[in-house]
Amino acid sequence: MDHKNTNLSAVLRKAGDLVVENTEIPTPAENEVQLRMQSVGICGSDVHYWEHGQCGKFLLTSPMILGHEASGIVSAVGEKVTHLSVGDRVAIEPGIPCHLCSFCKEGRYNLCVDMKFNATPPVDGSLRQFYCHPADLCFKLPDHVSFEEGALLEPLSVAIHSCKRGSVGLGTKVLICGAGPIGLVSLLTAKAMGAEKVVITDIVESRLQVAKDLGADLTVLADVKDPNKMADKINNACSGWLPDVTIECSGAPASLQSAVFATKPGGNIVTVGRGPRNVEVPIADASSREIDIKGVFRYVNCYPTALSMVANGLVDVKPLISHRFPLLESVKAFETAKTGAGGAIKVMIECGGS
Amino acid sequence: MDHKNTNLSAVLRKAGDLVVENTEIPTPAENEVQLRMQSVGICGSDVHYWEHGQCGKFLLTSPMILGHEASGIVSAVGEKVTHLSVGDRVAIEPGIPCHLCSFCKEGRYNLCVDMKFNATPPVDGSLRQFYCHPADLCFKLPDHVSFEEGALLEPLSVAIHSCKRGSVGLGTKVLICGAGPIGLVSLLTAKAMGAEKVVITDIVESRLQVAKDLGADLTVLADVKDPNKMADKINNACSGWLPDVTIECSGAPASLQSAVFATKPGGNIVTVGRGPRNVEVPIADASSREIDIKGVFRYVNCYPTALSMVANGLVDVKPLISHRFPLLESVKAFETAKTGAGGAIKVMIECGGS
Amino acid sequence: MDHKNTNLSAVLRKAGDLVVENTEIPTPAENEVQLRMQSVGICGSDVHYWEHGQCGKFLLTSPMILGHEASGIVSAVGEKVTHLSVGDRVAIEPGIPCHLCSFCKEGRYNLCVDMKFNATPPVDGSLRQFYCHPADLCFKLPDHVSFEEGALLEPLSVAIHSCKRGSVGLGTKVLICGAGPIGLVSLLTAKAMGAEKVVITDIVESRLQVAKDLGADLTVLADVKDPNKMADKINNACSGWLPDVTIECSGAPASLQSAVFATKPGGNIVTVGRGPRNVEVPIADASSREIDIKGVFRYVNCYPTALSMVANGLVDVKPLISHRFPLLESVKAFETAKTGAGGAIKVMIECGGS
Amino acid sequence: MDHKNTNLSAVLRKAGDLVVENTEIPTPAENEVQLRMQSVGICGSDVHYWEHGQCGKFLLTSPMILGHEASGIVSAVGEKVTHLSVGDRVAIEPGIPCHLCSFCKEGRYNLCVDMKFNATPPVDGSLRQFYCHPADLCFKLPDHVSFEEGALLEPLSVAIHSCKRGSVGLGTKVLICGAGPIGLVSLLTAKAMGAEKVVITDIVESRLQVAKDLGADLTVLADVKDPNKMADKINNACSGWLPDVTIECSGAPASLQSAVFATKPGGNIVTVGRGPRNVEVPIADASSREIDIKGVFRYVNCYPTALSMVANGLVDVKPLISHRFPLLESVKAFETAKTGAGGAIKVMIECGGS
Repeated sequence: MDHKNTNLSAVLRKAGDLVVENTEIPTPAENEVQLRMQSVGICGSDVHYWEHGQCGKFLLTSPMILGHEASGIVSAVGEKVTHLSVGDRVAIEPGIPCHLCSFCKEGRYNLCVDMKFNATPPVDGSLRQFYCHPADLCFKLPDHVSFEEGALLEPLSVAIHSCKRGSVGLGTKVLICGAGPIGLVSLLTAKAMGAEKVVITDIVESRLQVAKDLGADLTVLADVKDPNKMADKINNACSGWLPDVTIECSGAPASLQSAVFATKPGGNIVTVGRGPRNVEVPIADASSREIDIKGVFRYVNCYPTALSMVANGLVDVKPLISHRFPLLESVKAFETAKTGAGGAIKVMIECGGS
Repeated sequence: MDHKNTNLSAVLRKAGDLVVENTEIPTPAENEVQLRMQSVGICGSDVHYWEHGQCGKFLLTSPMILGHEASGIVSAVGEKVTHLSVGDRVAIEPGIPCHLCSFCKEGRYNLCVDMKFNATPPVDGSLRQFYCHPADLCFKLPDHVSFEEGALLEPLSVAIHSCKRGSVGLGTKVLICGAGPIGLVSLLTAKAMGAEKVVITDIVESRLQVAKDLGADLTVLADVKDPNKMADKINNACSGWLPDVTIECSGAPASLQSAVFATKPGGNIVTVGRGPRNVEVPIADASSREIDIKGVFRYVNCYPTALSMVANGLVDVKPLISHRFPLLESVKAFETAKTGAGGAIKVMIECGGS
Repeated sequence: MDHKNTNLSAVLRKAGDLVVENTEIPTPAENEVQLRMQSVGICGSDVHYWEHGQCGKFLLTSPMILGHEASGIVSAVGEKVTHLSVGDRVAIEPGIPCHLCSFCKEGRYNLCVDMKFNATPPVDGSLRQFYCHPADLCFKLPDHVSFEEGALLEPLSVAIHSCKRGSVGLGTKVLICGAGPIGLVSLLTAKAMGAEKVVITDIVESRLQVAKDLGADLTVLADVKDPNKMADKINNACSGWLPDVTIECSGAPASLQSAVFATKPGGNIVTVGRGPRNVEVPIADASSREIDIKGVFRYVNCYPTALSMVANGLVDVKPLISHRFPLLESVKAFETAKTGAGGAIKVMIECGGS
Repeated sequence: MDHKNTNLSAVLRKAGDLVVENTEIPTPAENEVQLRMQSVGICGSDVHYWEHGQCGKFLLTSPMILGHEASGIVSAVGEKVTHLSVGDRVAIEPGIPCHLCSFCKEGRYNLCVDMKFNATPPVDGSLRQFYCHPADLCFKLPDHVSFEEGALLEPLSVAIHSCKRGSVGLGTKVLICGAGPIGLVSLLTAKAMGAEKVVITDIVESRLQVAKDLGADLTVLADVKDPNKMADKINNACSGWLPDVTIECSGAPASLQSAVFATKPGGNIVTVGRGPRNVEVPIADASSREIDIKGVFRYVNCYPTALSMVANGLVDVKPLISHRFPLLESVKAFETAKTGAGGAIKVMIECGGS
């Protein structure tokens, strides 16, 4: 197939109805670049839209192209773009803020109310052959960083933002709840920040093994229902220390509850995973031990750090990729990500050769 | 009665059984001063111990003297005390930390696990004629600051710590939930910090009037059950702005829930009030708008600031005092504090002239 | 003169050569508004360009319109502007950042390397009848806030940024060096933030009197050459306390030196005033007492706070205005600002009625 | 020699007059432990006292035992000590704060004005056979951490405090001026915190080689006198990036000056090295680029982190030790440290076997 004349795109027509079909090739506006897309990872939210036609408060009301963990090659350059040229290999930060509201000006553009974020309705995503994006949100990859690594800067940015919100640093002891992709990149990130110990929990033993392989100091199987007892199990595993920071990546209410009981007084719990809308929280315990509960919404100013971590070898994210599919087999890729078949961690779609 | 030979003390023998009886006059140890007690305010926790024999995780297992919002006159000085002399009028910070644990060394001594806090079992309080306390926790009152104001530095310190944890500052817009004593001193403190607007809620209209008299910009009656609708009511009252910081002083679950919905993205909710152990929190909403939920346990390093605020006229806490009783009428004072009879806000017991 | 057909502008042709002459009336671009200019204050930097044709590293190489402390009335609205309409009265934040660099994205747009700042060469200022500016940098004034107050939000923003960098807050003790316009608004701002004490120094007794009238707790005449002795004089005046934060507004080397000696260990010195390029600093003393020396460059995200302070009566900046001139008498206005004749503090030029 | 009956100690009688002589064996007071001293490192300040009889503002006025980078074995336990037993191997944090002043209570005990610090006149040091120290300042070493590593926790704590004051973290780019012991441990610490790049300067090529071996990304010979040109040399070496943080360890005025020019706007310069009392600083440049200059005085709450870093393998400090001497040869050890003979980096004295 000739790349120059098609723009095959993974279009979610409505919940459950994902097709790969041709769309118009966009032209870069001022300050934008056109990208020949390369690796695009599948995120839990992509799967959620596919299955349910919504994710949190965001509803699919018309067809939308999926994909937001992405990298590409600059194929055309719009006016006023100075730092990129045709042929540059880039990672794409998928959220486009308004730049003008107080959140943007104060350095928290992830809270911008006019944010246009790839594959968050009604904004199209980047799982296609050609896509245009603001140049300032495209980060040039050094030659030794692969497109897949470029795509993985997205979940890595979530981990960086989470660890920063939790104030992970040199000597910090960290509890991570959930050993899925975000839990695993949080583990790598916490270690890169100098965390002294990382203990990680999950309900699936095999995921804990992956965590161990990636450097977790301790793993704890989350097979205890009572949150107090689960906290005891975690604290017993960490003989002699309490976690300063907990990164809650599972979204499970019981996990958040045990996190409160297990965390050190004065510590932080960062809620990254999304579960039910309302969760019963042992708030009296959290308050009287001054454990702060801090939410995380995407990330802000993390792409440069994520890129530098990968480029300088502070983290190796490649082991997270368990499956690869060409763009034309996107539905199969989504099936794999959904079922976790074959121990799927991160499923990657390659748009370059489809 | 001769003050020199008795030490009348408000002893809580067991839940419901409060008596004023003589106890031994203590001698100051090294680094301590002996105090002839003056004004002692009744705190909600004092009432709680009196009624229930417990408060949170703390259980009364043997008789305990009540009282921790206190001021006195130095009546004797222990060895090594240099900055205080007999006759000095002082406010008493009621918690004695260990100084040696990591919390103490890191400046968060309120989290010290060996804390000895007046009237928190099994540590006796200061509602008595004579009491000994570490000199470094006694703050000398200027002549123009009264003993009652000295006693009120305690709740004022809670407010300061709460506002600091919430990052209240110049231009901040603040929502305070609950117009009881802590809500009211939080209002005064937020204003002294330069808060641009303070809106305050309560379920009792008369308390809102007190708040208005003390400087609240807006008051909202909390008569709406549904937390989303209550948040709308608050936000409508504040036409055009959202609170950056919410100080939750009521402990009511619905109040915390509406606080989440009403607070600005990126803002803070400080949980000062204590309610049920577990509260259903709209955590997905809080997380995806990065609203941090921060607990407050007493205060740390706030007494000097509280004293300076009162001494320099930044706040006037005197209007908070609604009732006064002599030490011998302590039971009557506790009845008043419990029932709120006569519009009781802060009930003060005078130990000096009993 | 008919405002509709002229655009009288204060043009600095070269050092020393300031004329009021007609320039083209600009048309608002997308996201811009056209403003009929009202009050414009004269800043020290304006005077400096006029006298020397340069200020710091910025050199006048071609004619430039002066003025950047300004307010106006919206006279036309560009495309995409939604929050402003013709007739709105606004204060103008004079620096236009690029929005795209890492400084802008991280909330420190004052450090943006592509900043276009009014009356900083080669960017024209706003001392003229008509001027166009980005709408997001125009802040709507409530009816009870005057145009002069709107213009004064600029120096007030410098004070806010300075006090924030110094971490002034409730209970802070502050030393301000220099009682010129910036020193005086810093005094007002520190007080609005809850500063416990403010001591201010100057070499001119009459300026200290103004400071006293505006609320300074203590004033100290800077008539001692030796920095150690000057520090002693300051510390003696503040019997019993040391400043936590020093706001150095004079730019005088001796003042910065005495600031180091006078400030409390662990405190901050904020360098707002500009003096010689190199200054001998007692760095060993500053270091071994962990006194941080923090620079200030303009301000960032301070206009909303400045406006709220003025609108809500937290500060009264009107007493700072000592002189008023119409636009056509700009040269006379600059003479007054330069010589300080008649006790000039802030000289204001009115563009509306010229 | 029988350890039980002697207490050989390195006594500095007066400048230039260091002798190893017997002193009384001290008995542990309440909360203290008696230590049989093991490894004690020689610090630049020890050498300074030996040569000049003073260091900074501290003057030797009577004989004083030297040494403060130390480890030992608990040989007796005072009353109330619970967490240590005879035979425990410990690292010794050498500064004993008062615990009662506002600095101590606010978590900045390094600024305590009543600090008693080993080998800072008139307080004796720990370079002897037996020494008593507060138990809370003795940190138990795991079996796999050597006494020498225990002694090196002291300079490592300086590096941790310096990097923390500079806000070094994940992705930070760091310039270190001076490749002596403190510069080198700062390099190791910055890397452990996730610094993206570390460039280090020194006037001696061989030291730069050591830095390179320890992980420096870039080294720059400080052979250029003009600070602007030296900054250019540094910036050119770092093609494409500017240091976010500079850790100035040399104390040389020209080095601090070039640090100002070389550091990124909005960055931090941490002044660890001590040079002349007054230094000419390009303060206008620092201020207008908002580069903060932050001093460092010893460290606070860093020993636990330092120990965890060494125990968990985040740093390997052993390569810093270049020479070892027995206690009886202390004078020879000091000569070596002074002259740097044989490429001396860190000279260690062993008290255990003398």
